[in-house]
Amino acid sequence: MVAVKPKNNESNSADALAKSQSGQLIIIGGAEDKEGECKILREFIRRSGGREARIVVMTVATSSPGELGSDYRYLFEKLGAAVVDIVDTERREDASSSENLEVIANATGVFFTGGDQARITEILKDSEIDDLLHQKFAQGLVIAGTSAGAAMMPDMMIVEGEGETNPRLDTVILEPGMGFLPQVAIDQHFSQRGRLGRFVSALIQQPAVLGFGIDEDTAIAVDGDEIEVIGNGAVTIVDVAHLSHTNLDESLHDEALAICGAKLHILPNGYRFSLKQRDCIC
Amino acid sequence: MVAVKPKNNESNSADALAKSQSGQLIIIGGAEDKEGECKILREFIRRSGGREARIVVMTVATSSPGELGSDYRYLFEKLGAAVVDIVDTERREDASSSENLEVIANATGVFFTGGDQARITEILKDSEIDDLLHQKFAQGLVIAGTSAGAAMMPDMMIVEGEGETNPRLDTVILEPGMGFLPQVAIDQHFSQRGRLGRFVSALIQQPAVLGFGIDEDTAIAVDGDEIEVIGNGAVTIVDVAHLSHTNLDESLHDEALAICGAKLHILPNGYRFSLKQRDCIC
Repeated sequence: MVAVKPKNNESNSADALAKSQSGQLIIIGGAEDKEGECKILREFIRRSGGREARIVVMTVATSSPGELGSDYRYLFEKLGAAVVDIVDTERREDASSSENLEVIANATGVFFTGGDQARITEILKDSEIDDLLHQKFAQGLVIAGTSAGAAMMPDMMIVEGEGETNPRLDTVILEPGMGFLPQVAIDQHFSQRGRLGRFVSALIQQPAVLGFGIDEDTAIAVDGDEIEVIGNGAVTIVDVAHLSHTNLDESLHDEALAICGAKLHILPNGYRFSLKQRDCIC
Repeated sequence: MVAVKPKNNESNSADALAKSQSGQLIIIGGAEDKEGECKILREFIRRSGGREARIVVMTVATSSPGELGSDYRYLFEKLGAAVVDIVDTERREDASSSENLEVIANATGVFFTGGDQARITEILKDSEIDDLLHQKFAQGLVIAGTSAGAAMMPDMMIVEGEGETNPRLDTVILEPGMGFLPQVAIDQHFSQRGRLGRFVSALIQQPAVLGFGIDEDTAIAVDGDEIEVIGNGAVTIVDVAHLSHTNLDESLHDEALAICGAKLHILPNGYRFSLKQRDCIC
């Protein structure tokens, strides 16, 4: 258990956290419902300003953005957003286009589609769009991402990795992500692709000690220190802050990894979790 | 963490445990190596008496035992066992056949093949073979089982269940198992079939608070209080003894289950775990 700090310090740190990160994130494990209740996408629009929402769909993760962008535009319009624009950044130079920057500057919510997370960082990382997104995020922008758009959220992201394996040293490739949610690990399509092994491999190989494995049609909504689960699956949270043992340091190529004494939470729709306390808010 | 009891009490309970259960179990997650080093099957023969081992292959889990039995006989003979017999109990009456009982009475190791775990309990549970196996197990018999032969080991077994899902109330069907390893939950083909969700569903719906998810080509060798991992995958251990919250009691049909504050260990080959301390022996 995390030691509870004196109340004054606690609220000071909470204020600091809220200050550094005043926008909200909706991090979706892929395959979110687009035909039924649309619980997750609806929540994205609601948090982005509801009927006043000005949404930008970012299709950077996919090399064939055509229909994907317009499908989301149709959906977000149907859900009641005031304005929906699509920003296709197919090349690095598109990430400094003044037209694209202007559209994003006016947005209240930005949605990253699925595709390949490596494309997102190759094209956007350290670009003018990246700077603008971080700046607007600090001012309250809502940023959502599904699948690849979820993978890119932390400061280190899983680019590739085998599912349905036990944790092994070389089962995942990690690269710097977009850093909207630092100090955590994220994996998506979690239960559907049996990813506990790759997720734990990724988690113990990075400085972050807290990981969120997000199921399909499931999301975490991050608002400052607080995370809420939305959707039909669950979020599997693994905390490796206080392992009694791991063999990570002495492991060689492709060897099986050991962890002893991790903490595990599995939370469905409506459950909340505190990033600071690293515990469920029950 | 489990509170450490005074040393005297501890060794008394350990003695009691050793007394009630002096045989060993080799519980295999399925698809064990039969062509290479045969690490797990070799260990079964070694613990069953090595070159003096008298092995019985039980094909009860499968309705077409023919080749399966003879393949294992060939393998165990190749690995150096002195005697290998096959016991096919295709009907309930075969479980009281004096011929079968005599073969088992002379065994030092009994191996349950894969198939359907419900067949094992339908044909054997509360039969004369069942009584004899428990009696000989208390006297030191080694009992191994792979896949269905692993599933039947606890007092409650998973008969059926969806893989690649989050924990849900109705995702598993549980029935009484053969009770060789009471008070734990077992799942097999664990990483390969993405079974964390069904495993946790099964675990929190039974009195047992400790569950072992065993990968393919991986086994736990249980000797009294101590468990050792053998093989190329890992064993995922979930301990729900001290959950801070679960919604199990108020959940309805097919609803997603929540657990907060479980303990998680993932252990590869050579790692040991104490059933009594519910912790890794590192």
